[in-house]
Amino acid sequence: MDFNAWSLDIQTRMERVLDDILPAANIIPSRLHGAMRYAVLGGGKRVRALLAHAAGEFCQAPISAVEQSAAAVELIHAYSLVHDDMPCMDDDDLRRGKPSCHKQYDDATALLVGDALQTLAFKVLAEPGLLRDAARQLHMVHILAMASGSRGMAGGQAIDLASVGLDLTQTELEQMHIHKTGALIRAAALLGAESADTVDADRIKAVDHYAQAIGLAFQVVDDILDSEADTTTLGKTAGKDADSNKPTYVTILGLERAKQLAQELYDEALAPLAAYGDSALRLQQLAKFITQRSF
Amino acid sequence: MDFNAWSLDIQTRMERVLDDILPAANIIPSRLHGAMRYAVLGGGKRVRALLAHAAGEFCQAPISAVEQSAAAVELIHAYSLVHDDMPCMDDDDLRRGKPSCHKQYDDATALLVGDALQTLAFKVLAEPGLLRDAARQLHMVHILAMASGSRGMAGGQAIDLASVGLDLTQTELEQMHIHKTGALIRAAALLGAESADTVDADRIKAVDHYAQAIGLAFQVVDDILDSEADTTTLGKTAGKDADSNKPTYVTILGLERAKQLAQELYDEALAPLAAYGDSALRLQQLAKFITQRSF
Repeated sequence: MDFNAWSLDIQTRMERVLDDILPAANIIPSRLHGAMRYAVLGGGKRVRALLAHAAGEFCQAPISAVEQSAAAVELIHAYSLVHDDMPCMDDDDLRRGKPSCHKQYDDATALLVGDALQTLAFKVLAEPGLLRDAARQLHMVHILAMASGSRGMAGGQAIDLASVGLDLTQTELEQMHIHKTGALIRAAALLGAESADTVDADRIKAVDHYAQAIGLAFQVVDDILDSEADTTTLGKTAGKDADSNKPTYVTILGLERAKQLAQELYDEALAPLAAYGDSALRLQQLAKFITQRSF
Repeated sequence: MDFNAWSLDIQTRMERVLDDILPAANIIPSRLHGAMRYAVLGGGKRVRALLAHAAGEFCQAPISAVEQSAAAVELIHAYSLVHDDMPCMDDDDLRRGKPSCHKQYDDATALLVGDALQTLAFKVLAEPGLLRDAARQLHMVHILAMASGSRGMAGGQAIDLASVGLDLTQTELEQMHIHKTGALIRAAALLGAESADTVDADRIKAVDHYAQAIGLAFQVVDDILDSEADTTTLGKTAGKDADSNKPTYVTILGLERAKQLAQELYDEALAPLAAYGDSALRLQQLAKFITQRSF
């Protein structure tokens, strides 16, 4: 199966998995459940789910466990987008080419949607029997919590808020993104790897190094796309970060140097996989997809 | 130890436990961590922690495990208060006698505070070795997620939002409160009970029945207090629910019948404990404290 077919298959399966996990829109409170479904289903590249699957294949994890781990990460990601788009945060009206959750519903509903999606992510990871080894499953809950909280994703958001209008150095910008997007991307890959029946510590370490490089690369490319693309292509409001005076890799490094950095991070991501031959194929392809989607 | 000394001891210990769990305010992002501490520490009756401890004593659970379980529930409760007070929800400027989190900080910070406190609750419950039995610890994560999400507390909030200005029946009001406050109160007691080294299914069932009755009683008494007290005594804006046209037990039943209902729920809560003698003492005392704090 080529990479496009592989990723389309996963995107299709993940849509079904998330559809099954999310409460039906006719279950009370139905407005909340409808809004949760609106925020999660029918969109997104599911990059985090692809990472979980690629890492899961690398570690020979059963696909059913990988699907649930990937779904938990996608739910956290979806919650963060809903809250980030709210008027008191980025105040963005458009997400994945449609009105963002608070525009389609209302602010109070969007707040609860984000809250309930986060909870649902932890519920999914805590379902009995997801792994045969309950201690390791508990470890997965812990990984997701570390990646999402005040010293991970939510902390990155707070650093981002505090950085508006400031002149950050590249190192400071990197610190922000390691938290804001990197932590959850890293968790996605780790949870895919940890979903295996037997843990191979060396492979998990390789996945971890890969995911840290790819997490930064993802953000660098996002900044490049944001500076180059128009709103229609992007599916969200383009040029928003520069407009709102937020530092980006492009504003700090310039476009050419940012593209060069993405390439360097791509090489860095692949290095720990070199010893593993074909089993790392999907991780390699995904790294290429993430870093070269724009150029 | 009499009940007052017992509860003061727990409140004091929980303050220290939560202080240890919350990241220090000098850890980056320091504004977020400072705000998280502001929202959690130095206030509240810690009713949920008291319930966890009373149920833990009833099931002979080790106090260190009960403390962590109780802390997880208190963190969820604190997150819900921060988000509920925000302008797009109840828009309340006062909480526990001081400015609510978004007034003391700002809306964006309050949003992230709530998000990060929820995550922290799940991190606490997923810490390795909290229980010797990892499968049961995972079950505790699941209990907390069920109680907090769209079919528990967050769902109750959504029903509450949708009920403003409506004439609810007593049954509909009850359904709202079973979700909005009852689910987490029930989880607090269950998590205390599940913290035991050995599970006694009958005792857990008794705790569950007790907690369901006491959860409703808690809300009935809250409505009574809200209708009777002034803002200074209550530590939050009094009469707010009636002013904002929200149905309460007092508006639906009248004050006298609401007081009678609180008494009935008290009796209901105690019934399943009758067979257990002195081991149920704290649960009994706590039921009395919760239902009779106003009259």
